[in-house]
Amino acid sequence: MKIPFNKPYLTGKETHYLYDAVSTGKLSGNGKYTQKCQKFFEEEYGFGKSLLTTSCTDALEMAAILINIKEGDEVIMPSYTFVSTSNAFVLRGAMIVFADSRKDRPGIDEDSIEALITKRTKAIVPVHYAGVACDMDKIMELANKYNLYVVEDAAQAIDSYYTGRDGVKKALGSIGHLAAFSFHETKNIISGEGGMLAINDMQFAKRAEIIWEKGTNRSAFFRGEVDKYGWVDIGSSFLPSELISSFLWAQLENLENIQARRKQLWAQYYYGLKEWALKNDIMIPFVPSFATINGHMFYLVCKSPKQRKELIAKLKENDIHAVFHYLSLHKSPFYIDRHDGRYLPFVDYYSDCLVRLPLFYELKDEEVISVVDYLIN
Amino acid sequence: MKIPFNKPYLTGKETHYLYDAVSTGKLSGNGKYTQKCQKFFEEEYGFGKSLLTTSCTDALEMAAILINIKEGDEVIMPSYTFVSTSNAFVLRGAMIVFADSRKDRPGIDEDSIEALITKRTKAIVPVHYAGVACDMDKIMELANKYNLYVVEDAAQAIDSYYTGRDGVKKALGSIGHLAAFSFHETKNIISGEGGMLAINDMQFAKRAEIIWEKGTNRSAFFRGEVDKYGWVDIGSSFLPSELISSFLWAQLENLENIQARRKQLWAQYYYGLKEWALKNDIMIPFVPSFATINGHMFYLVCKSPKQRKELIAKLKENDIHAVFHYLSLHKSPFYIDRHDGRYLPFVDYYSDCLVRLPLFYELKDEEVISVVDYLIN
Repeated sequence: MKIPFNKPYLTGKETHYLYDAVSTGKLSGNGKYTQKCQKFFEEEYGFGKSLLTTSCTDALEMAAILINIKEGDEVIMPSYTFVSTSNAFVLRGAMIVFADSRKDRPGIDEDSIEALITKRTKAIVPVHYAGVACDMDKIMELANKYNLYVVEDAAQAIDSYYTGRDGVKKALGSIGHLAAFSFHETKNIISGEGGMLAINDMQFAKRAEIIWEKGTNRSAFFRGEVDKYGWVDIGSSFLPSELISSFLWAQLENLENIQARRKQLWAQYYYGLKEWALKNDIMIPFVPSFATINGHMFYLVCKSPKQRKELIAKLKENDIHAVFHYLSLHKSPFYIDRHDGRYLPFVDYYSDCLVRLPLFYELKDEEVISVVDYLIN
Repeated sequence: MKIPFNKPYLTGKETHYLYDAVSTGKLSGNGKYTQKCQKFFEEEYGFGKSLLTTSCTDALEMAAILINIKEGDEVIMPSYTFVSTSNAFVLRGAMIVFADSRKDRPGIDEDSIEALITKRTKAIVPVHYAGVACDMDKIMELANKYNLYVVEDAAQAIDSYYTGRDGVKKALGSIGHLAAFSFHETKNIISGEGGMLAINDMQFAKRAEIIWEKGTNRSAFFRGEVDKYGWVDIGSSFLPSELISSFLWAQLENLENIQARRKQLWAQYYYGLKEWALKNDIMIPFVPSFATINGHMFYLVCKSPKQRKELIAKLKENDIHAVFHYLSLHKSPFYIDRHDGRYLPFVDYYSDCLVRLPLFYELKDEEVISVVDYLIN
C-alpha cells in the first residue's frame, strides 16, 4: 500500500537507549528506564503511581486482581471495545454486562449505566475511544453512589484530557481508581508491546507493587522495609524488560513533538472532510466540550455497511489502507450465549459502519490531502 | 563485588538484531524474530510447538489455562521452587499440594507423589532444579495411571536432557504435555524478561495460539483459515515484543558456545570442591545417570544454616557474592494456612542450607579457582 494504515514511528534515540540498557547489564524488570518512565508519567499526568506492564491487557488484569474480582461479580463496560477489556475481568470470574455506545460517538452511553447496576456490580470500565473522554463526572458519581470501582481503559488515551464540572482539567487515566494504557505499536507512544497501570486510589499502591512482582514483597525488600522477601499474595510477572522501557523512554522524550504532529493530521482530516460528511450522512468524530483530542485516530461512520465497504474499496483501489475496528463483543462466539440478550444498536452500528483512516506521525500533508480527495470526489 | 553472583552475557549481536527489528517497523508480537526463535526451539529440542511469552510465569499461566484448571483442582509440585510455579495455578483457582524434595538433590521426591494424588488432582508440575532432570519415566507413568497432566517447569533447564528407560535421550521440556522455560537475565539464554511455552501434546496446539493472542483466532485469520477474527476464548497478551525476540535470537545463535563455557565452569567447581565437601559434610550437586547438567547453576548444601551463613560471609569478605535460593513455599505467608500441615523436611533443608556460587559466561577460570580456594582454605 502506498499509504499504509499505520507505521510505527521511531524517534531515532530508541537504539541509543536500548544500547545503554544492554550495556548496564540490568535487563530484567524495574530497572533504571522503567523507573524513569514511571516517574515521567506520574509527574506529567498526575497519576498517584505508575507501573509499566508488558501490555495494556496485563494492566487491566492487575486492575481486576486489585479490586478483587471474584466469580459472579459483574463489571459494566461498552461492548464496542477490544477483547482484552473484558477478558481481563472474565479471567477472574466476572460476568460482563455490556453497555451500548452513544449515538454521537463510540464511547459508552453514560446514561445507560445506572439501569445496569445490580447488587453484584463491582466496577465500571469506561473506554476512552479514540482518546476522547467519556463523561467522567457522571461515571464517578454513579461509582460513589453505588460504591463501585472505576477502571479507565485508556489504551488509546495517552495525553488526552477531561475537564469536569468543577472546571479542573485532568489527564485521562488520572480520574478513575485505576487506569490502563497501551504502548502497542499501533498507539501514539510505542514499545512494540507494552502497557501501564495508573493507580489513583492509593489504597491500591502497596498491593499493586506486590502483584506486579509475582505476588512477592520484593520491592519492599529492596527498599529495606522487610528483611526477606517471599510469597505474600497472588500475582504474575507483569513487569516488562528494560529492553521495552528503554525503547519507551526515547518515545517519551519526543511526546510533545509526536502529539503536535498527530493532532495536526487529525485536524487536517476533520476540516477536509466535514462538509462532505454532512452532505453524505457520514458521521465524523464529535468531541464534547469537556474532552480533548490526542490525535490517536481519525474515523468516519458510514450510514450503512454497504457504504463502508465501497469506501474502503475505493481507497484500496488508490493504494490507501483504511480499516474497520471492533466487532461487537456481546455477539462474539465467546460471549453471545453469556450475554443477556439486550439489543445494543449503537454498538452494532459502529461495528458495521465505522472506518479508520491512515494516521501516523510520518504521514505527509499531501498524503492526507490525497486521502481526502479520493473520498470527496 | 569483585566477583558478582551473576552477570548477563551479551554475545555482541543483540543490538544488531534489535536494530534490524526496529528498522522493519514491526515491533509487536509474533513477527519475524519470534518465528525464528520458535522454529529454532522446535527443531533443536523436538518440542511439538513453541510459543514465546513475556515470562516463564506467563508460560505457566498458559499451561494452567490450557489444562482447564478450575476452583478446587489440585496440583502437585515441589515446595522448593519459585513462587510463579504455584501462583500460575493458584490464579486459576487450584489448591497446591506441595511435595517434598529428594534427599540427594532439590528436585521433587518422585516416590512421594503417588500418595498425594486424590480425585481432585489434575496435574503434576516437576521442576528441573538447576537444570537436572527429575525422573520423568516415574512421573509420566503416574500421569498415565491417574490420567493427569504433566507441566514441566523447565525455567532453568534449557539444553538439558533426560534419558528414559527406553534408552532415548530427550530434551527437558519435550516430555511432559506442556513445559515452561525462562529467559530472565539470570538464565543461560536471556532476553531480560522472557519465556516460552513448549507444547508436546498437540491437542493443545490450536487453543494455545488463541490464548496467546488474547483469546482471539487472529493467527488462524492471518493464515486464511477463518474470514474474520474475534473473541473465541479466554486468554491474555502472552506474546512478547519483537524487541525481546530479536535480542533472544542473538543469544540462540551463540547457544552452543554459551553452554560449553558454562558446563566447563560447573565442572571446575565440581572437581575443585568435591573432596573438601565430602570431608566437611557439605553436599555437592548429584546428577543421576539419566540426567545431564546444563551449566545453569552450581550449588552447595551446607550441614546447617549456621555453616551456610559463615560460608556466605567468608566469601563476602573476599568480595565474592554467593546467595541462597528459595524459601519453602508451604511456609510462606501466603500459603502457610492453606498447606495441609505435612512436614517437608528436605524442602526446609534446602531452603535453610543451600547456597549458589557465582556462575556466568564471563566468569574467568582464575576467578573460579579463587572462589574454590577461599572455600577450602
